Amino acid sequence: MILSALLTSVGINLGLCFLFFTLYSILRKQPGNITVYAPRLVAEGKVQEGGHFNLERLLPTAGWVRQAWEPSEEEFLSNSGLDAFVFMRIFIFSLKVFAFGGIIGMFVLLPINYMGSQLSDDSDFQHKSLDSFSISNVNNGSNRLWIHFSAAYVFTGIVCYLLYYEYWYLSSKRIAYFYSSKPQPHQFTLLVRGIPVPPGTTCDETVERFFLEYHPSTYLSHSVVRRSNKLQRLVNDAEKLYKRLTHLKQKNDPPKRHRRDGCLGLFGRKVDIDHYERRLGDIEDNVRMEQSSLEAKEVRAAFVSFKTRFGAAIALHIQESVNPTEWITEKAPEPHDVYWPFFTVSFIKRWISKLVVFVACTSLTVLFLIPVAIVQGLTHLDQLETWFPFLRGILRLSVVSQVITGYLPSLILQLFLSFVPPVMIMLSSMQGYISWSQIQKSACTKVLWFTIWNIFFANVLSGSALYRVRIFLEPKEIPRILGEAVPSQASFFISYVVTSGWTTIASELFQLNKLISNFISKIFGGNNDDDFEPPSIPYHSEIPRIRLFGLLGVTYFILAPLIIPFLLIYFCLGYFIFRNQLLKVYVARYETGGEFWPTVHNSTIFSLILMHIIAIGIFGLKKLPLASILTVPLPILTLLFNEYCQKRFFPTFKNYPAECLINKDRADENEDNMPEFYDKLANAYNDPALMPIKFSERSDTHRSPLLHSSE
Amino acid sequence: MILSALLTSVGINLGLCFLFFTLYSILRKQPGNITVYAPRLVAEGKVQEGGHFNLERLLPTAGWVRQAWEPSEEEFLSNSGLDAFVFMRIFIFSLKVFAFGGIIGMFVLLPINYMGSQLSDDSDFQHKSLDSFSISNVNNGSNRLWIHFSAAYVFTGIVCYLLYYEYWYLSSKRIAYFYSSKPQPHQFTLLVRGIPVPPGTTCDETVERFFLEYHPSTYLSHSVVRRSNKLQRLVNDAEKLYKRLTHLKQKNDPPKRHRRDGCLGLFGRKVDIDHYERRLGDIEDNVRMEQSSLEAKEVRAAFVSFKTRFGAAIALHIQESVNPTEWITEKAPEPHDVYWPFFTVSFIKRWISKLVVFVACTSLTVLFLIPVAIVQGLTHLDQLETWFPFLRGILRLSVVSQVITGYLPSLILQLFLSFVPPVMIMLSSMQGYISWSQIQKSACTKVLWFTIWNIFFANVLSGSALYRVRIFLEPKEIPRILGEAVPSQASFFISYVVTSGWTTIASELFQLNKLISNFISKIFGGNNDDDFEPPSIPYHSEIPRIRLFGLLGVTYFILAPLIIPFLLIYFCLGYFIFRNQLLKVYVARYETGGEFWPTVHNSTIFSLILMHIIAIGIFGLKKLPLASILTVPLPILTLLFNEYCQKRFFPTFKNYPAECLINKDRADENEDNMPEFYDKLANAYNDPALMPIKFSERSDTHRSPLLHSSE
Repeated sequence: MILSALLTSVGINLGLCFLFFTLYSILRKQPGNITVYAPRLVAEGKVQEGGHFNLERLLPTAGWVRQAWEPSEEEFLSNSGLDAFVFMRIFIFSLKVFAFGGIIGMFVLLPINYMGSQLSDDSDFQHKSLDSFSISNVNNGSNRLWIHFSAAYVFTGIVCYLLYYEYWYLSSKRIAYFYSSKPQPHQFTLLVRGIPVPPGTTCDETVERFFLEYHPSTYLSHSVVRRSNKLQRLVNDAEKLYKRLTHLKQKNDPPKRHRRDGCLGLFGRKVDIDHYERRLGDIEDNVRMEQSSLEAKEVRAAFVSFKTRFGAAIALHIQESVNPTEWITEKAPEPHDVYWPFFTVSFIKRWISKLVVFVACTSLTVLFLIPVAIVQGLTHLDQLETWFPFLRGILRLSVVSQVITGYLPSLILQLFLSFVPPVMIMLSSMQGYISWSQIQKSACTKVLWFTIWNIFFANVLSGSALYRVRIFLEPKEIPRILGEAVPSQASFFISYVVTSGWTTIASELFQLNKLISNFISKIFGGNNDDDFEPPSIPYHSEIPRIRLFGLLGVTYFILAPLIIPFLLIYFCLGYFIFRNQLLKVYVARYETGGEFWPTVHNSTIFSLILMHIIAIGIFGLKKLPLASILTVPLPILTLLFNEYCQKRFFPTFKNYPAECLINKDRADENEDNMPEFYDKLANAYNDPALMPIKFSERSDTHRSPLLHSSE
Repeated sequence: MILSALLTSVGINLGLCFLFFTLYSILRKQPGNITVYAPRLVAEGKVQEGGHFNLERLLPTAGWVRQAWEPSEEEFLSNSGLDAFVFMRIFIFSLKVFAFGGIIGMFVLLPINYMGSQLSDDSDFQHKSLDSFSISNVNNGSNRLWIHFSAAYVFTGIVCYLLYYEYWYLSSKRIAYFYSSKPQPHQFTLLVRGIPVPPGTTCDETVERFFLEYHPSTYLSHSVVRRSNKLQRLVNDAEKLYKRLTHLKQKNDPPKRHRRDGCLGLFGRKVDIDHYERRLGDIEDNVRMEQSSLEAKEVRAAFVSFKTRFGAAIALHIQESVNPTEWITEKAPEPHDVYWPFFTVSFIKRWISKLVVFVACTSLTVLFLIPVAIVQGLTHLDQLETWFPFLRGILRLSVVSQVITGYLPSLILQLFLSFVPPVMIMLSSMQGYISWSQIQKSACTKVLWFTIWNIFFANVLSGSALYRVRIFLEPKEIPRILGEAVPSQASFFISYVVTSGWTTIASELFQLNKLISNFISKIFGGNNDDDFEPPSIPYHSEIPRIRLFGLLGVTYFILAPLIIPFLLIYFCLGYFIFRNQLLKVYVARYETGGEFWPTVHNSTIFSLILMHIIAIGIFGLKKLPLASILTVPLPILTLLFNEYCQKRFFPTFKNYPAECLINKDRADENEDNMPEFYDKLANAYNDPALMPIKFSERSDTHRSPLLHSSE
């Protein structure tokens, strides 16, 4: 790629971003789009739909940037929660890292690279290849490479310092957040599995007896988990029917009592309110019958609540039974965060499903590109002509054929890629996690590795998947192969940052999909406002994407520092856009207390190590073996640093220490409303499907869905 | 090696063993040797020295075998403790494994191997090479190899079943042993390190305040660790002097009040009792001065005792402080087991020393044979002649030269090898362990790996150490290389079992070193009986040796089943001899409750995996690639089995579950002597160097050394 081509691409993409921003700043002010651009504010009742028309609505303004910038860190934290705060810290951390990296890269490394003559590129400045700005242009054996060598050490030092500071800062925030939190059911509750129920007794009795025996002073209550998925379905049906009924009744429109239920009321079966009411009554009868029979369908697991947080921690940390596969305790998630489509009690089953998921996830990651390549191969023009002969005329047009051959393969890749996060979520939920937050956290790691393998390594190491795997089976060869392959892809990744990075982040702001679906539902009706629920941020797909750009920046820092300015723009845009989105669009579905940070930390350490390995390879290729050898301590030191960080900070992100728990428990004792809280706690984890339901006569609020499903 | 040579070797070594047994059965009955052959019984006062002479004393009898056989498992357990019991289970387990292995090997595999014609060895039976009985003799591509393949699966299944049974049996024994134990200080106590002492307060106050604040209901007492090594030296000096003085006084022999203190009283300085008494007085003064100044030399660590075992477990398992590098808790060892020549408090220092030890231990293991080879190279005859010209005449005698060239290299190897266990003990103690038991457990693992690398791999993979290391950096090549190299060493290892295995186990019974040193001290005097202390079994050197033979049996099971009968004899001898030794010779210095078993389990799993890898390699070399591929699931299944065992049983070997702790605590409440025990507990971990000493006037018992040393 030559410089002018890069500049053109930058220009086009800047224009696109600018267009998105302009459109956003106009569209967000239209009352009809308020559920797209500020659903959170709507849900919190801070903004009302509708409003008077004025001219200002049609003018693009940058007010949203100011609004996103204004709240202080503390305000943002209290407004959006610690998880969102940690998410924003990724941008701040990356900006710091690449500000330092940019200074060294642009003012020290770039001039040195440009002054080299290895590539003997004699074209004028505009037509210079981007490689002239990379380390490939430095002459072999040149002593100037020692500057790159020192830069690697300095940069690693800076990144490690920033990592340490950030881990320290966030762990103190986490403790502070815990201290400032109100008593919450999940702080006092454990999920206990593998309960050995002796014959002749019920699970209920066994749990009660065990905890009264071994934790008499702290045990409060428990609720046994039941196999309620059939019941759950019935209750959901009833709820849906009830909603529709209320909706129909509200319209209070006699002719519509008999209407068709399809699009625009023109098509579909004829329905009438009486019919609905009769069906609802039937379902309710079924639900009551199912509920009474469900009491017997106990699963050998229970939520056990304790009087104090410390009491729960004791039961959590100390192996309860002589057989460690029985009475397995685990922290309970927040009641509304419970999500276990594949819940199992058996120790062996869970262990096997973990193994199966591990194998499935690894093969998906490693072999993903094979089916993609096959499908891409099927979309050659002649193939399409055979399949759709009637399109032959159109396909022969040169514009159409160019578009198809140019965009179809990458469209297919994008299509396949878009399935990955949901698949990883499914795999994680099969793995035995019991809450949406844990599933998303685990899927986040899976998607991260997937992204690194299928975007970074797949582009760097061309060749079949098996070839790439084989490289990692010959550890000695890795530095040399990476040292050869990575620098040659520098210009690809620079343009990747500009095209893919900038536009995805701008489209995050613009929310095209939501906008269109909102528009369609407005026109065709059908969607009623009762169903409106503000979205939550998909950490499991956003964090890996952002971290990939971080990885690109770190690995290319000494190879092609030209990438860094573009990354700085990316992270800057990201900071403002995601701050805006987290304040206005996304609602936190759960609060893990910042448990996503260790993933970010680990991925940064991984990128550093990768950078070091590439440096070892490249110094070898550049005929400076001494620098190559002297780089070897760097990854070792980095790993040791990581080890220390894990020991120093990771425990805080896993569990709260005794000191905090006890202090918090003591603070509770002085609270007035603790008896009420204990009452609430005792019922917090009851299966909502077991609550008495009575839709037919009732018409006020509908039940809050606590437990979403259970096996 | 040919069959007749093996039989000769077997004959010679059987003869040697028989000689050892005969000598033992005579010598053990001589009253003078009672401290060599039954020191434990002497220490327990069950046997008195001396006795009448009778003829039976001079007749070899096998009574000791009966005595070793007679006690039931329960009797042995209550007599020698759980560690010794677990040690004996190694023999029982190995006997079971190789009984099954022997049946399959001798009656199925051996005939098949012998019927092959790959090696075309046409010599008569007596001169057949041992390789004719190994898998090397099976024809390439022969379908008979499928029998070896099935044998690998069946044998792995049997070993895994036995491993599971043994782990299960020993974990239930461990729990039972805990239930039957009396209240012991170490069950109630933790060592706390990294105490953050605020300026202006002492460590003593900080500990007290912290535990009264956060564990008010269970905290009992504490004793701060002090830097007492100087004091310790003084106290030791005083003790030694006091002992010598009592010894001299007891002799009550006026002329001897002035005697020389050397050998036989003939050489050395003149000493007199008055002089000793004066010196003892001086030292006592010094000790008192040092004791008073020591109060200030606090180390930021303390032994904290709790009222209940469960209370101690709570403080142990839950991170105490927000900063996980402070208030680090760790189970306290038994008071007389405390041993920390390199005790440090600082988290970082301990972490660094762990790293340093890891590097040192790895390099020692990998590079050990290099200096050995160099020294062995120096002992060529011509070299010796240059160094010791006066020996030239003797060295030229053919007998002498044969002995030297034949035995000197192996003598040097043995000499170097004998230094390994003490070196590993030193490394382990530098690693930050705080008790002799933990140090020995960790040294046991280190010596085990050392033995496997330097005896198994060094003999199998001839070539330099670096070559052997390089093989393991190319994971794909390992099966092929091992498949080539291991079978060719079969006859070496068979004769190794016979020569090294049988004789070391027989000499364990005979205790030649002790016998000689006892004899010398008898003749030359000097050693007085006050110093007599029965030895403890060096698990860290015995377990690796025994496990090496287990590894040989498992890896050679399908390759050369001829090794198994010899191993059965080895384990049989070992069972009787070690039972005898543990009942009569060795005293348990500590009781870990069987924590050595996981090491044995893991090493067996390792040998199975090694066997599978070799099988994969050999089926490939024997042109049966399908069998090679079908063997691949075997190591994976074995690893999964191991993973399950670790989850199912290992926690029990690490900590006791809440159920046991609470039940045991409740049982204590009904005991009468608990107040006395609490009094004892409060002082159990006081530094003995700080106790008031008064030797000068005192003359009854000498102080029990509780804490051996501290930094």
